Amino acid sequence: MKTSIGPMTVLHPHPVLVIATYGKDGRPNMMPASWGGICCSDPPCVAVSLRKATLTYHNILASKAFTVNIPPVDYYKEADYAGVVSGRTVDKFKETGLTPIKSDKVNAPLIKEFPLNLECQLHSQTEIGLHTQFIGRIMDVKADENVLTNGQPDIEKTKPLIWGSFGSNSYYAIGGKIGPAFTTKKIR
Amino acid sequence: MKTSIGPMTVLHPHPVLVIATYGKDGRPNMMPASWGGICCSDPPCVAVSLRKATLTYHNILASKAFTVNIPPVDYYKEADYAGVVSGRTVDKFKETGLTPIKSDKVNAPLIKEFPLNLECQLHSQTEIGLHTQFIGRIMDVKADENVLTNGQPDIEKTKPLIWGSFGSNSYYAIGGKIGPAFTTKKIR
Repeated sequence: MKTSIGPMTVLHPHPVLVIATYGKDGRPNMMPASWGGICCSDPPCVAVSLRKATLTYHNILASKAFTVNIPPVDYYKEADYAGVVSGRTVDKFKETGLTPIKSDKVNAPLIKEFPLNLECQLHSQTEIGLHTQFIGRIMDVKADENVLTNGQPDIEKTKPLIWGSFGSNSYYAIGGKIGPAFTTKKIR
Repeated sequence: MKTSIGPMTVLHPHPVLVIATYGKDGRPNMMPASWGGICCSDPPCVAVSLRKATLTYHNILASKAFTVNIPPVDYYKEADYAGVVSGRTVDKFKETGLTPIKSDKVNAPLIKEFPLNLECQLHSQTEIGLHTQFIGRIMDVKADENVLTNGQPDIEKTKPLIWGSFGSNSYYAIGGKIGPAFTTKKIR
């Protein structure tokens, strides 16, 4: 039976997107965000929503760039920590030991230890309410060679972190393969 | 070592969001979309990007409403099929055996067999390029009682489908719990 649970912001699953930016002083910062996803194939774009209260919000507006870095399950504590503390008072890269490296295409750092990194130029932003949605044009994707299969990032190798939403409020791994996509031409 | 793989639209993981709408003639339709996610906490909003070529695009513009339904792994063939055929030529509900039921709050059907359903009023739309991003204000969420834990949808019970992106081009299940979220105050 269907129960009304009110207008909750719940989807299953939510990604864990670690957004990395430079401040005006050149200092790298990062924060995890789960309000986001790909939003256009051509031009290739990704959307990420952030609160004005975050340092990342202001860094993106100043630098017009950000990267989206996919944390593997082995780094769940580092990704989680980056959402608990503020870049205004803590150097999150120093405290986590993660390494900011220069992007080729945009003015934002990549996180070296995370195997999948999207370099994004700010395309536009929209104030929705508590959150502002930033749309980034994906200028390039960097991936660790060891997570590629036939030149494509392989989710069985990137082992991404998933956030289970407010219910469990826990992180999960990817599970078993269910079946191939875009193949079902008949059900019965 | 980091390799450049070009400006791909790849994130790990992508959700599988089955968007349900009514046509002008009142006929229910549905299609899966992976370009989307929550985009604001207050007002609660979800973003979904669709191509103009889809019937769903036109249905949303006409009805100003849609629902986001989360398919469980047991229904991966139904969700996949809904993305392979067009609602212009096929009655996808009839062919899949899925059941459209009336929403309380918006002019769009819920998919009965999917345990988590977001009722959305069209908030705004943005033409990005090949895709148009629709932002829906979440007016209510319906959930099957048996997927709730302490009144919240539990990802271990909804068992959502995940799309593994272009690399594997396969669907996956949620895997094991990695750890609690929003708790890491110190790394070392």
